[in-house]
This record gives sequence, structure tokens and C-alpha cells, in this order.
Amino acid sequence: MKNVSIVGVGRMGANMARRLRDQGFHVCAVFDAHRAAAEALAAELACAAPATLAETAAPAEAIVTVVTDDAAQRAVFFGADNLLAAGPGKLFLNCATISPAVHVEIEAAARNAGCASLEACMASSIPQARDGTLYLMCGGEPEVFERARPLLAALGSTVRFVGAAGRAAQVKALVNMVMNINTAALAEGLGLADALGLDLTMVREIFGGTGANSRVLATDGEDMQNREHSCYFSAAHAAKDSGIALELAREAGLNLPLAAATKAQFDRLVAAGHGGLDKSGVAELTFKGRG
Amino acid sequence: MKNVSIVGVGRMGANMARRLRDQGFHVCAVFDAHRAAAEALAAELACAAPATLAETAAPAEAIVTVVTDDAAQRAVFFGADNLLAAGPGKLFLNCATISPAVHVEIEAAARNAGCASLEACMASSIPQARDGTLYLMCGGEPEVFERARPLLAALGSTVRFVGAAGRAAQVKALVNMVMNINTAALAEGLGLADALGLDLTMVREIFGGTGANSRVLATDGEDMQNREHSCYFSAAHAAKDSGIALELAREAGLNLPLAAATKAQFDRLVAAGHGGLDKSGVAELTFKGRG
Repeated sequence: MKNVSIVGVGRMGANMARRLRDQGFHVCAVFDAHRAAAEALAAELACAAPATLAETAAPAEAIVTVVTDDAAQRAVFFGADNLLAAGPGKLFLNCATISPAVHVEIEAAARNAGCASLEACMASSIPQARDGTLYLMCGGEPEVFERARPLLAALGSTVRFVGAAGRAAQVKALVNMVMNINTAALAEGLGLADALGLDLTMVREIFGGTGANSRVLATDGEDMQNREHSCYFSAAHAAKDSGIALELAREAGLNLPLAAATKAQFDRLVAAGHGGLDKSGVAELTFKGRG
Repeated sequence: MKNVSIVGVGRMGANMARRLRDQGFHVCAVFDAHRAAAEALAAELACAAPATLAETAAPAEAIVTVVTDDAAQRAVFFGADNLLAAGPGKLFLNCATISPAVHVEIEAAARNAGCASLEACMASSIPQARDGTLYLMCGGEPEVFERARPLLAALGSTVRFVGAAGRAAQVKALVNMVMNINTAALAEGLGLADALGLDLTMVREIFGGTGANSRVLATDGEDMQNREHSCYFSAAHAAKDSGIALELAREAGLNLPLAAATKAQFDRLVAAGHGGLDKSGVAELTFKGRG
């Protein structure tokens, strides 16, 4: 498997394309709904930027999709112009964070078209995409997972097979749900510390040495203190992912008050026009005199 | 400083007494409102278990207090029988998690009585008390902190001077507020994972490698899975400490929805008669078919 196309070349998809090129894959075509993004990346990688999805898939053995949401993921497989039109034999690696049911739907459609599909949810961000150190959680048929291994190994430093199609999306939704709650919690802790006149650098150090420690303290704590909200994982994505988890909870008949309170915080940010801030921007709601 | 008395000999206080004995201090007297606890520990340590607080303080240069709450802390300093009655020159090391204002009040009263008071909030639990590996956050006058150093060094592996009296209690309230939220968040994540039929051991491993990682994942995750809620830090304490933080937030005019939702969860546990469970017991509310 040498010839790979990429669909969705935002910062994640573009970095994954660069990484695959560096690892000896031939990136033969790239596609994005935002056509200028695809053309810029095609120029950089000296590859094609076809006008259609069918042409994007045609020259590739494997197609990596990194789109924004359920609607975009369904559109590239089920729209008038779609990836399945390129014919049988393709392997699709679907890396977007979308609803579990959409992965199941796409796997069935790919199988009917003589293709194979694997979900490969990413629990990491833009620098890890560039470095090939993504944390990848995969769902699908075990033999498709084995077939995709060379591609997965080039993209991720941790590659886990989680179960059937949709299972990885479920776990990803759980990861992001908990991450988002911990992020909103940290914003409350630092916001109150600031209101009390405490030294936030000291408070972060103490959090790091105690039961308040968390991964998001390391990734977002200093940014909350310094109001540095350049986007790695947007508030809008946080709201979306917590929403996916809450929908799973609703279907399961579970009441999750913290997840709901967290989604409400990120929804507030989005409603205020700040959905493009990094998730650390939730601190803008919990510090006095901000927001 | 060799002669030390301990007031409040629950599992924390008793272990601190044992640790001080091991480190060459002379534990001369122990006291507890639950008299049998004091007598049992006194027999173990071959020390006195006086009937009054004044007698407990009298033979000691330093008195460590480890009581349950604001009311208990105020009672041992301001009740009819109290520690200040033992006369001037004493050093009080107050280790309970109480409201910041009570530390300020006690520091002033100790000064007026010719004594000195230091708050030494503990961000650790029972095994660390026994091993002398507590995380201690201290508030008070810097010279009192210096005077207390030998005692602090025997009890803690990390000793931080945070600021004036009450400051350490503020930071402790923040630590526990964030820890409690992260705990309730983890309970939601694992509860939903369980409802979805996912393997919780796998989910905990993935949480640990991703943005969902937290200190409470390591301390409470497996216990939530196995319904092992033997108490290290009780749900009732969690409710109390989140309440202290929310009161500080209210005074500061801050709205902290996650802290409020978390307190409501621990309050539910307490109301259901489960306040004595470890804080991991919050998972009894978020797993289907439990609680």
C-alpha cells in the first residue's frame, strides 16, 4: 500500500499528509470542501487536487478521511459525488470524530461497494499529526485493521484496536467528554484562585502535585492563566463532542449532570462568538472581569 | 521541639502521632472527642490521654490538631475547656480542612494568648500520614513556619509555604474542589462506558493515555469499576470541601456550575446514607443498575 489520498486537509489532515509523505507513502491526491486549502497542499506536496471525490479516490489504494462532522462524513460517502464511486478494492481510514452510528453505516456501504472501512479515532492534536505520534483508537473488522497497519503505524505511536465499527468513536466520545469536564473544572479552580488573589503559577504547581492533577492541567493550565487561546482543539469541537456523549447517555437512559453542565459552558462560549477559541477559552467564563 | 500532643486521633491524626513517634518526637498526650479512640492510641504509644484539652496541651511544646470541621476546630480553641488555657509559648499546627476564616481567627487568638498558630493543610491521605509523605500547604507568619519546620519535615515530603493564615485553606479548598469534579467526571465517563458495554479496563487504559487522564483516574478508577469504596476520603468530606469552595466563590461573585453540580452529586450520596463511602462511591450514581 503506497498510494494514499487525503480527504479533508485542515491542519490535522494536512499534517497527516505530510507525515505520510515523509514515511515513504505516495500522496497522490488531496481534497477539501475548501478548495483553496486542497490546492495549497497539493502544490506543497506536488500531488493532484482533483475537483471531485471520485477522482480523489481513483488513483489511491487507501483514502484517509479527516472531515469535520457527521454531515461532512456522510456527504463524502453518500453525496452525488462520493468516494465509493471510484470502484472496489479501496481501503478507507476514517479519522474524524463523529457519531458511532455513522461509522457503522459507512462500513456497511463500503462493504457493499467491494471496499473496506476502518474507523481510526484520534485522541491527539496537530503537532502529533505532524510527528506521527497520534493516539489512534480503531474500530472495524480485525482483518481490515491488519490491512491498515502500515498506514496506522506511520501515523500513530499508539494504535489500539477497540472493537467493531463505532466502538472507537464511543470511546473517543468518552475521552473527550471527560477531558472537557476536567478542562471546565480547571477553569473554575483557576478562576476562583484568581478571584481570591492567589498566585496562579503556585496554584498550578500545587494542583500538579495533588489530587487535582490532570492531563489538561499540563496542556491548558498556563494558557488559561495567560489568556492564550490559540486553537488546538476548539470550544466548538468540545461542545460537539460532549453533545455526542450526552446523546449516547440519553439513549442509554443515564443522567450525567457534569457532562451536561460542561456542554452548557462550551455552548455559552460558542453562542458568544468564541467557538473558535481553544477549549482553554472556557476560562474566559470563570475568571472575574473576563468574558 | 520534642514534646508533641495530638488533638483529634481519627485515622489521620493517629497515623501522624505514630509517624512523629517513629521520627524521635515524644508524643506526650493525645485527645479525641471520641474518648475510646484517644485511650486506645495512648495505650499503643504509652502516652497520656487526658480528660481535658488544657491538660493535653500543657506538657507539649507543639500541639497538632486534626479535627473534623470548623465547629470542632473552633471548639478546641474557644470552648469552655480549650487548648489556649494551657498558657503561653505553645505552637499549634492546625491540619484539618476547614474554612480559611477560622484559621485567621485562631491565629489571632493564639497570638493574644502568647502562642503561635500555623495552618498546615494536608493534600494527601491516610497512608501518607503514616509514612511521613504528606503534601503540606502552610499558611501563617513566615517565622512561625520556620519554627514549625522540624515538625513539618517529619510529617510531609512536600512542604509549601503558601501565604498568610487562611491562604493554605483556600488552596486546599481549590484542590479538593477540582479533585471532586474530576472524580465525578470520571464516574460519568466510566458509567457511560459500562452502559455502552465497553471493557472498563480498556477504557481506563485509554483514558490514562489521553486528555482524559487525571490523578483520580489512578486513585479511583479501578475502585469505581469494582465498586470498592472503602473510605480514604469520604463522600461527606467531598461534599463539605466543595461547599467551602462554593462559599468562597459566592463571596467572590463567581458562578461555578461544575463545582455546584459536583456538590449536588455528593450531597445526593450523603442524603442516600452513603456519606461514609469513599469519594469513588459517586460512581454508584452514574452506573446503570447501581445506587
